[in-house]
Amino acid sequence: MSLQEQIKSTIRDINDYPKAGIVFKDITPVLATPKLVKAIASELRAQFENEKIDAIAATEARGFIFGSILALELGCAFIPIRKKGKLPYATRSQEYQLEYGTASVEIHTDAVKPGARVLIHDDLLATGGTAGAAADLIKSFDGVVAGFSFIINLSFLPGEENLMQRYGVKPHYLVKY
Amino acid sequence: MSLQEQIKSTIRDINDYPKAGIVFKDITPVLATPKLVKAIASELRAQFENEKIDAIAATEARGFIFGSILALELGCAFIPIRKKGKLPYATRSQEYQLEYGTASVEIHTDAVKPGARVLIHDDLLATGGTAGAAADLIKSFDGVVAGFSFIINLSFLPGEENLMQRYGVKPHYLVKY
Repeated sequence: MSLQEQIKSTIRDINDYPKAGIVFKDITPVLATPKLVKAIASELRAQFENEKIDAIAATEARGFIFGSILALELGCAFIPIRKKGKLPYATRSQEYQLEYGTASVEIHTDAVKPGARVLIHDDLLATGGTAGAAADLIKSFDGVVAGFSFIINLSFLPGEENLMQRYGVKPHYLVKY
Repeated sequence: MSLQEQIKSTIRDINDYPKAGIVFKDITPVLATPKLVKAIASELRAQFENEKIDAIAATEARGFIFGSILALELGCAFIPIRKKGKLPYATRSQEYQLEYGTASVEIHTDAVKPGARVLIHDDLLATGGTAGAAADLIKSFDGVVAGFSFIINLSFLPGEENLMQRYGVKPHYLVKY
């Protein structure tokens, strides 16, 4: 079985979560399978090791899991991007659209060096709202958005097109639905 | 410089966070230092590789960072423990005391196999409330609390004694204040 098939056969569908009509893709069975986590780590390293990545920026909380693993694999910095009020030092915020209303994410003001090539990671690409807000934060400090990395792309939503249009890089993902 | 000294000299003190009178220990400068993250990963692996650990259980969000790295290093499962309402599958909750009031954490009901040796990880040991609640969840599924792993122990608070008394294992940590 290919890595993609292994991941897909291990992810669990949760019907009507977080609300009626949504089928949530649960990666916790993947996390419970050490060989698969190791294979994903190797695949992500192979994908990005020649891209001169200086830092992985990952959004809490699920993005921290493979985000920190990827930073270790690439030997680069790890930048946590968190919900409002969760980072202790001076922060900058970026709002983004939700289906109804807005949310915002924050980054430490000393996290991105000018010119740093930053790869943005999260477990799931839906509309690209959170990842786009993370990218805006990176760019606001003159960082370079070197790419986007996801485990899952929900390709019936316009996340991939949105991120490509706005940031000029094609998002990378391991499996799509 | 020893690893302990390197960690301590890299951690940043944030005065009056999250509230007046508290000095918060900010590990984000550690995460921005790839060599130090790698050294911590190696030290934690050396500490636990002979302990027959089946899974790392880590509490969101900061606990996910070194928790997932440690699971990869040990080749064991990773169990996310999350705040109420954040896990998609069937869950069990455990309440714990805060300074004022209570909070609760949740685990998936299929995360712990009976007899599994689970190491609980978080970045910081304060009073041990969250880690204790995680331990209670592990034990409620007949898992074995194989140990506790922290980066930082605030030793002027009774976390270490609390966990030793209640679970009979001495918490491991890399640096203390």
